Amino acid sequence: MNFSMIIFILGRLLLTLAVLLLLPLATALIYREGCAVAIGVTIAVCAAAGFLLSRRKPQNRVLQLRDGFTITALAWIMISVVGSLPFLISGEIASPVDAIFETVSGFTTTGASILYDVEAMSHGLLFWRSFTHWIGGMGVLVFLLSITSLSGGSHVNLMKAESPGPQVEKLAPTVQSTAKILYGIYIFLTVLEIAFLLAGGMPAFDAVTVSFGTAGTGGFGVRNDSIASYSPYVQTVVTVFMIMFGINFNFYFFLLMRKFRRAVMMEEVRVYAGIILTAIVVITINIHGLYEHISTALLHASFQVGSIITTTGFTTTNYDVWPEASKAILVLLMFIGACAGSTGGGVKVSRCIILFKTMRKELRRLLHPMSVKKIALDGKSIAHEVVRSTNVFMFSYILIFVVSVLVISFDGFDFTSNFTAVAATLNNIGPGLGAVGPAQNFAGYSALSKLVLIFDMLAGRLELFPLLLLFTKENWQKF
Amino acid sequence: MNFSMIIFILGRLLLTLAVLLLLPLATALIYREGCAVAIGVTIAVCAAAGFLLSRRKPQNRVLQLRDGFTITALAWIMISVVGSLPFLISGEIASPVDAIFETVSGFTTTGASILYDVEAMSHGLLFWRSFTHWIGGMGVLVFLLSITSLSGGSHVNLMKAESPGPQVEKLAPTVQSTAKILYGIYIFLTVLEIAFLLAGGMPAFDAVTVSFGTAGTGGFGVRNDSIASYSPYVQTVVTVFMIMFGINFNFYFFLLMRKFRRAVMMEEVRVYAGIILTAIVVITINIHGLYEHISTALLHASFQVGSIITTTGFTTTNYDVWPEASKAILVLLMFIGACAGSTGGGVKVSRCIILFKTMRKELRRLLHPMSVKKIALDGKSIAHEVVRSTNVFMFSYILIFVVSVLVISFDGFDFTSNFTAVAATLNNIGPGLGAVGPAQNFAGYSALSKLVLIFDMLAGRLELFPLLLLFTKENWQKF
Repeated sequence: MNFSMIIFILGRLLLTLAVLLLLPLATALIYREGCAVAIGVTIAVCAAAGFLLSRRKPQNRVLQLRDGFTITALAWIMISVVGSLPFLISGEIASPVDAIFETVSGFTTTGASILYDVEAMSHGLLFWRSFTHWIGGMGVLVFLLSITSLSGGSHVNLMKAESPGPQVEKLAPTVQSTAKILYGIYIFLTVLEIAFLLAGGMPAFDAVTVSFGTAGTGGFGVRNDSIASYSPYVQTVVTVFMIMFGINFNFYFFLLMRKFRRAVMMEEVRVYAGIILTAIVVITINIHGLYEHISTALLHASFQVGSIITTTGFTTTNYDVWPEASKAILVLLMFIGACAGSTGGGVKVSRCIILFKTMRKELRRLLHPMSVKKIALDGKSIAHEVVRSTNVFMFSYILIFVVSVLVISFDGFDFTSNFTAVAATLNNIGPGLGAVGPAQNFAGYSALSKLVLIFDMLAGRLELFPLLLLFTKENWQKF
Repeated sequence: MNFSMIIFILGRLLLTLAVLLLLPLATALIYREGCAVAIGVTIAVCAAAGFLLSRRKPQNRVLQLRDGFTITALAWIMISVVGSLPFLISGEIASPVDAIFETVSGFTTTGASILYDVEAMSHGLLFWRSFTHWIGGMGVLVFLLSITSLSGGSHVNLMKAESPGPQVEKLAPTVQSTAKILYGIYIFLTVLEIAFLLAGGMPAFDAVTVSFGTAGTGGFGVRNDSIASYSPYVQTVVTVFMIMFGINFNFYFFLLMRKFRRAVMMEEVRVYAGIILTAIVVITINIHGLYEHISTALLHASFQVGSIITTTGFTTTNYDVWPEASKAILVLLMFIGACAGSTGGGVKVSRCIILFKTMRKELRRLLHPMSVKKIALDGKSIAHEVVRSTNVFMFSYILIFVVSVLVISFDGFDFTSNFTAVAATLNNIGPGLGAVGPAQNFAGYSALSKLVLIFDMLAGRLELFPLLLLFTKENWQKF
């Protein structure tokens, strides 16, 4: 384990956080709010600690895969604690567990909240809350990689550990340029959404924070009814952008490279689009009786489907009162999740494709034991390693899921609430059904349950392995 | 595909069924009930059709694996339809879908019922209903193998397809003697339970039918309140026998061979016992406030845990009113299921062990990509094929589960009911929670949903593959 490099990178990350916190500080100052002090103190703490930790650039900058996993896990735990300081110091969230829950929910782009009244919060902290979505969406270490040159190490291992999906494709020869391309696309799309929202007459503060929430597929809003009270135009824009941020960013990279055919042929994107269209059609038919006009049903269905499959978690209506079939479809979408290489969570469409193809192949093998056929995605055969780690991912996922539901069920909420609470946090969505439905929040759970859900959010965002390995003996052994 | 052999075996099976139906016929005659006519007609149909189909013994008696799968799937579909005739002809169950549901639920040892008032049924048909559990528990083809000598073929493929668990161990050199040993143990334990129940003063009819339900881990009772109104002695006997029938029958075989050490060291049995003990302790603590005395809580907890992990489905109390934590534990037990090589259903303890070990191994491999370590069960390393088919089993299982919940949710029941209805049928348990809880039944679902649940019961009993392969093109192709 390269401890000096771990400490160095964590230090750099704290410095980065100090810089990023200048934006909410500016917001607080513009609105002349008292929370500016809390944010200022946090910046000072980050800067001081970051400076101390990253003083010495290590000689050995090589990062093994397990270093990458360890740094990623520790980095996310660290930013969760540090990021909660503004809420705690300002007193706007009194309990430390709640403050960390809200921050983890932000960085992991979950959007599950313990707040009853977000409109009572200061603009500075609301901005920070939404900004955590944006930072966490593409990955805080990817951001660090895009701005600093850590020459000499194999930093693809850092990116592997933080980026969602079963395999990481380098878009450019170096990790740094890949990270730059990703953040370039990310910033462009975010600015585009802000522009569209401003064009619809949305207040600037709302446009920026809602765009952060969309871009990171997070789901924190700045109004108590999420997106429900905005105009249909705004809702439509948000729907389109949620779905866009759930697409594998390689798609945009291909567009950028003018490889249109290759972009359109991406298997994962086609399946993703197919699932979304099917779900919208079925739900619209299923719920149309609840609304005056079918167009309203279509708008609500599209918004909720886009919000849940991309694991954003914005809502325009209380879907907890929808018919059971529509709710069942939404629960299924919670698990499928967005594309790999997007900012969305969940199991990921490409993993589902791999699992489905594995199943088909193995069923065939039962009949023809001698056949040797590889699974392919986009025409390229998938490495055996990827198939295996996809399998392990699924079992670890199920195991974490089951244990979490068991533990939180001691709080006495009903099965639907507990099941969807874990589904909504492990898949980084936000709201679930029942006691954690769109019109409710997570405040009712005990501190222990909140800690479990915090773990689930982190495990979901980092795709289990970094966090699980942190608890294995082997990770800390020399070899 | 060896079609003539398939037809021959199906014919033999019909003849067997005709013989087995003599027992309920005798019961009906003893009680002088009208249903004797219905049973008699069914016997005639079985005998005639069976004679026609099995007239000619085929030349080529070799059964490939896919022949085994196909025969098993077709056999179970056939006995489900034929077995429902007594209910239909007698008019005691009016709707064909309901009659088939009840029969499939019987043969697959599920125990889910569409009947509101079992006490209104005739003794003859109640006997048949419970007897289907006993026949289906150990497997109808295994029974056929144990009584007829189908010399010349590799009939282990028939047994492989019908016996539960990730791998089949031949206990004796030939399939026929293995089948004989299994049925010997099965009959001995069943008779033992009948004796214990009679000793407790239970009426003979109840003792026999309840023992059939226990032995097959089925769960059909002959009273509307299942086992609740019997004495604590009876409930304790049933608890012990349910748990015993959920143990891998190899355990008893080792006992029989006086290999006590090997029996006690069986990893699956130890884990199974550990899970049961833990669940009983936690639930007893969790529910003790609901009952006057902790011993009552312990009795109810033990009974329900034993009933659900072995997927029997008998109940002594309405556990739907238990605290959420206890219910969550029961739902988890529904999925784990009993041991492989027992009459119980579910995923099976050994599959869970394999999955868990695979996960641990693969997590380790993430850190040490070069390590080559095999997974072991009982000290013997597991064939790669078994690990792979366990993986496919899980994905097929999840896929069937998800699609089933989606389809039946259109009936409008709540998520908990739909989720546990599928869990209870796919795992061959019987009752679930909510609308399909122990105090309710499955009559409320639509015909389409019942067909889905019928498919789930069959898929669960045959462990997915035989039924899934029936729908693949490759299964019917020549090669």
